[in-house]
Amino acid sequence: MVDTGKFIDTAIQEIKTAAGNDKVVMALSGGVDSSVCAALAARAIGDRLIPIYIDTGLMRKGETDRVRTLFGNIHLQVVDAADEFFSCLKGITDPEAKRKAIGERFIRVFEREAKKQGAKCLLQGTIYPDRIESEGGIKSHHNVGGMPLLMEFSRLIEPIRDLYKDEVREVAGALGLPTEIQHRMPFPGPGLAVRVLGEVTPEKVAVVRQANWIVEDELVEQYHPWQCFAALIGLGTGVKGDNRIHGWIVAIRAVNSRDGMTADPLDIPFSELTRIGSRITADIPRVARVVYDITAKPPATIEYE
Amino acid sequence: MVDTGKFIDTAIQEIKTAAGNDKVVMALSGGVDSSVCAALAARAIGDRLIPIYIDTGLMRKGETDRVRTLFGNIHLQVVDAADEFFSCLKGITDPEAKRKAIGERFIRVFEREAKKQGAKCLLQGTIYPDRIESEGGIKSHHNVGGMPLLMEFSRLIEPIRDLYKDEVREVAGALGLPTEIQHRMPFPGPGLAVRVLGEVTPEKVAVVRQANWIVEDELVEQYHPWQCFAALIGLGTGVKGDNRIHGWIVAIRAVNSRDGMTADPLDIPFSELTRIGSRITADIPRVARVVYDITAKPPATIEYE
Repeated sequence: MVDTGKFIDTAIQEIKTAAGNDKVVMALSGGVDSSVCAALAARAIGDRLIPIYIDTGLMRKGETDRVRTLFGNIHLQVVDAADEFFSCLKGITDPEAKRKAIGERFIRVFEREAKKQGAKCLLQGTIYPDRIESEGGIKSHHNVGGMPLLMEFSRLIEPIRDLYKDEVREVAGALGLPTEIQHRMPFPGPGLAVRVLGEVTPEKVAVVRQANWIVEDELVEQYHPWQCFAALIGLGTGVKGDNRIHGWIVAIRAVNSRDGMTADPLDIPFSELTRIGSRITADIPRVARVVYDITAKPPATIEYE
Repeated sequence: MVDTGKFIDTAIQEIKTAAGNDKVVMALSGGVDSSVCAALAARAIGDRLIPIYIDTGLMRKGETDRVRTLFGNIHLQVVDAADEFFSCLKGITDPEAKRKAIGERFIRVFEREAKKQGAKCLLQGTIYPDRIESEGGIKSHHNVGGMPLLMEFSRLIEPIRDLYKDEVREVAGALGLPTEIQHRMPFPGPGLAVRVLGEVTPEKVAVVRQANWIVEDELVEQYHPWQCFAALIGLGTGVKGDNRIHGWIVAIRAVNSRDGMTADPLDIPFSELTRIGSRITADIPRVARVVYDITAKPPATIEYE
């Protein structure tokens, strides 16, 4: 474990040196990694930090408003790009192609907004497991860093590149960030798109967003899992009244993990699981079936795509 | 509950009267319904009963051999039609279209074989819930009876049409059928095709057949569920060694039920579930993820399509 006080001082100094007198842009998602980077950079260079929050239309329920509230006091740029993202995802079913399309669109939107700011430095919240897994090809584009930027930045700053997730959380605490951010679960860069198997449509994203809200509401405070979420994994048959219907199949994923490299499914009492499943099918009429993921990582990944 | 002795006498008399001096054909799947019908008809008309077993290529592991062994002493016709079925399923992804294609193919193969036998009567193992659910449109073609036969039969005999499943099992016991048949789980007419979401391919059927074998091996004797099986519900990411792979998602479905009209998911200890999941991913390398279905019927059906 790092000495957080010492780490913070060193990181602030590193950002100051790298930035010089230039403006620094970063993609702020509201997750713990980018939030810690934003807090460090704000201390280092004040309002020369320009965090850009891109609303891809693939965010969780209430996410955009939450980020706006939390980071409104630094020069946050909020960009609504949902239509752009859904357009570029139309007809794409291959998981890698989906990730690439989102990654590319994200870079293009980010570049467009960064150019407006005239920044020469790019700050990124890459952490240690991201670097390891990128090398092995396990994650491809969770971060902006996974994609080549056409735009020229004179400097790339990655202040938390050597930290594990739990160390990042400690630093978040030491920086005085809200507990909500400090204990925030990992959320993938491509957002809800990787929690929808097959083509990404506004309807499917709306279903998985609502299911995900319920899963987080039921599990986060009670079980403090490393990560929990809902995924929409297919269409199966169900029955409403006397009629056969086709409805979405929602998977609940909840895991414990130390660092995200390996993970175990959470042991939730069966009566709780079935109650949560019933809440999902009752609240979202288009869902006919709920399953609980019982696979460790490996052989599964935590996310579905 | 029926008086089984009285029921058997009445049914035998009914079959005798309906058959007259004609031959009677039936589709024998090896399930409890068709097996009871075959046993009743064998008592009623002896070797004028001609049961036809069609191997669709969509059967469970060892099924065809098992039926051959069990019913070899009556005039069983075994028809290998796997290639025909896979050909007609190529490119079909819609669940209803799949069922229809299988139902139609089944009827055509059955007609072809029945014609060879020169039979005028058709015997069917329709039970009471089949009739109710057909009316409501919940099941479409679990039975031959769901499809129109082009061939003319002078008579249709449905000796167990008024029985619930548990009553059929009782009759099976009274008829002295092997315990294995008596306590046999329901298995859908379209076979493993409805346990593979999307297009049916020989590879997907092979995966689900092996997973299903494991699920039955682990759960049937220990928990005596009304029904349990594996379904292949999609393709997700996994990790083998340091590499990201795409692997099948297998769902385990296990339910308790009185009559199949409603059902509750089986409460299996979590450590057992994860152990069974690990056995599936270890034995079938192409499977990356296993989920457990926690939905009651309604709102889900027992089967996936």
